[in-house]
Amino acid sequence: METETLKGTKNYTPEEQILREKIIKIIKEVLERYGFNPIETPILQPYSLLSSKYGGGEEILKECYKLKDQGNRKLGLRYELTITLARYLNENPNIKLPFKRYEIGKIFRDGPVKKAREREFTQFDADIIGTNSKFADLEILSILEEVFKKLNIDVEIRLNDKKILFQILKYAGIEGDQNFQNSIILTIDKLEKIGRKGVEKELMQKGLDKNKISKIFKLIEISGKNEKILEELSKKINVDDIKEIVRLSKIQGLKKIKLSPSLARGLAYYTDLIFEVFSEKMSSSLAGGGRYNNLFKNLINKDLPSVGVSFGIDAIASILKPEKKSKVQSYLIPVGISAEKFLPIVKELRKNINTDFDLIGRGLSKNLEFADRNKIPYSIIVGEKELKEGKVKLKNMETGEEKVLSLEETVKIIKSI
Amino acid sequence: METETLKGTKNYTPEEQILREKIIKIIKEVLERYGFNPIETPILQPYSLLSSKYGGGEEILKECYKLKDQGNRKLGLRYELTITLARYLNENPNIKLPFKRYEIGKIFRDGPVKKAREREFTQFDADIIGTNSKFADLEILSILEEVFKKLNIDVEIRLNDKKILFQILKYAGIEGDQNFQNSIILTIDKLEKIGRKGVEKELMQKGLDKNKISKIFKLIEISGKNEKILEELSKKINVDDIKEIVRLSKIQGLKKIKLSPSLARGLAYYTDLIFEVFSEKMSSSLAGGGRYNNLFKNLINKDLPSVGVSFGIDAIASILKPEKKSKVQSYLIPVGISAEKFLPIVKELRKNINTDFDLIGRGLSKNLEFADRNKIPYSIIVGEKELKEGKVKLKNMETGEEKVLSLEETVKIIKSI
Repeated sequence: METETLKGTKNYTPEEQILREKIIKIIKEVLERYGFNPIETPILQPYSLLSSKYGGGEEILKECYKLKDQGNRKLGLRYELTITLARYLNENPNIKLPFKRYEIGKIFRDGPVKKAREREFTQFDADIIGTNSKFADLEILSILEEVFKKLNIDVEIRLNDKKILFQILKYAGIEGDQNFQNSIILTIDKLEKIGRKGVEKELMQKGLDKNKISKIFKLIEISGKNEKILEELSKKINVDDIKEIVRLSKIQGLKKIKLSPSLARGLAYYTDLIFEVFSEKMSSSLAGGGRYNNLFKNLINKDLPSVGVSFGIDAIASILKPEKKSKVQSYLIPVGISAEKFLPIVKELRKNINTDFDLIGRGLSKNLEFADRNKIPYSIIVGEKELKEGKVKLKNMETGEEKVLSLEETVKIIKSI
Repeated sequence: METETLKGTKNYTPEEQILREKIIKIIKEVLERYGFNPIETPILQPYSLLSSKYGGGEEILKECYKLKDQGNRKLGLRYELTITLARYLNENPNIKLPFKRYEIGKIFRDGPVKKAREREFTQFDADIIGTNSKFADLEILSILEEVFKKLNIDVEIRLNDKKILFQILKYAGIEGDQNFQNSIILTIDKLEKIGRKGVEKELMQKGLDKNKISKIFKLIEISGKNEKILEELSKKINVDDIKEIVRLSKIQGLKKIKLSPSLARGLAYYTDLIFEVFSEKMSSSLAGGGRYNNLFKNLINKDLPSVGVSFGIDAIASILKPEKKSKVQSYLIPVGISAEKFLPIVKELRKNINTDFDLIGRGLSKNLEFADRNKIPYSIIVGEKELKEGKVKLKNMETGEEKVLSLEETVKIIKSI
């Protein structure tokens, strides 16, 4: 029986799952505070939707899992949650706009496996659909800042505008078709990773001369405070849109926003604002997104300018430390008493606290070992003696301290942790 | 662009999703009270695991979606959450037993689509692994009763023992290989659906004579109170195991348990206790499960007798009425005031309540219409006049009533609903 792990897929233990659920809960709560509602789209999609030339682009499509059903229809597993949103919008044409929705779901990419990027992984997306308003962009940036503050992760939210990148190309005198321009932009995006030397080399390989390359660097290497970057850039190109976002961010009191003229992000469908969230603890980003004003026009012929963000749950989990190994709060150990006597105690405890009990009639020491190994904070021991007194023996598994208490007092202590 | 719905897959709107999340939350809370912890297993699995002859059986395997990855490995999408648990247990050999875990996840079956049974759907499983204890069986039955009480769904929990079915066959003088016996049992299981006449006809087609068929009916048609059924059955066959479960259920105060000697459930791997939960509002079951003592021995060569239950989230959702169309509690409408003035109010509201606001500068009436159509309970209107007074205008969208209040009073009112 082949039961080995499939590379790029992962089993999550309770410890890992408790942490992931905590992250998801924090993001959900922030999004709901901001007026977002949950939806769910299917994993299985028509391959024709996933493979649309207006979708995620060729790079992603290469990594799309393909299959057929019994009716010989060509299907694929979704590789992101934005493209499946198109089908959702098509099915629900009467939505009032702007539509703020979030979705948590599995996505699949048959590509190289690296840290915090499996072949099957959980993505958490939030989007505001159907408006070009800068307030929508501001909502997403505010959410990012609040989420990472609540997660207690120090981050930098790098910001750019896709239009700035195209203007930089124009300024440098680079012409050619969309694909060529996109390819130059993808090289520029590597500045952080491969440094100025690396980017120069790649640009030369792509046929740019020294003069053009130096013009590019003149603009993408501008550094300093956001205001200074804007001022410098505005001498050469139009930066009004991102300037307005920076202004609104200031009113909103956002502190983590950092303009980054070389930031490009991979996906071809972004049109304006783009952003990525970085922590010093990790080389890949924890979240990212941007404004995509043409995607739904191209895919489903609807003019729905939109802005959205994706959180990588596994990436975020990988830099946080699990706190709990178990959700169980107390473990009842009956000592020589019958089911008629201990089942009602278990029932009473479960009105207030998460309780497990000895199912298999082990001895006291084996039971204590079980509670200890599972990191259950309290054991509750009940024998004839305790029953007669109407009490239980509460054992703090960390300190070893034991107390004989009423059930009520016991519940109060355990609930207080 | 093909974006039509793929048959058997479903988009869930906020209204539907809010209901599904409520159901999941209730089940999770009950399970955690009973000492269960969450795990997660992958959807993509090696096809060899899914197709093991010890798995779900041929019927299910026919409906398994198959695919290959770029490395030409044969994969499949999981069709249930018990078989993927095998891989989990294999990867985590040091788990302390008994292991109580739950998992919520998508499963896939490329079969006929019917009400509340899509091709891609959400299953919620809970299992106690590694003990043959009747207390484990009792835990699962207690959970079922508590979950449906909390969901406010009146149910009957039908109970049987796989061993009773095999003994009935023996009593009726039916011999033959396992497959033949299983096929007879599957026919018996249809009693509720196709009636005595239908079952008789099918049994005759399978080659049973009148005498054998009448012997079968003598036992499977015994009705009445659980005690009476046990008494009658015990004259012909051994019912000690289920008798003990009925006894424990009584101590536990369970009220929905109903012995049903014809109940069989589809899956071949159940060995002892089996159960299914029915509501009068629906023909298919809302939950079901049983004891499977040999599955992990066969699949991964580990002796882990287990008992578990599956909840069908879509089936349960289909008989409950959605309550909320949106999680948004208040909608702020600025009237002729600048971002500097209204953004801080939005921020303050979001400390306590879920708040959306006008992103696109609509007029008051369009904004009220938006809030109304989205079933947001309160609108908050703020113009220069309100700002000067340090107040806001709160409009109850259901009654139409308007009040001029401080922000504090506003939050208090909205939080109280």
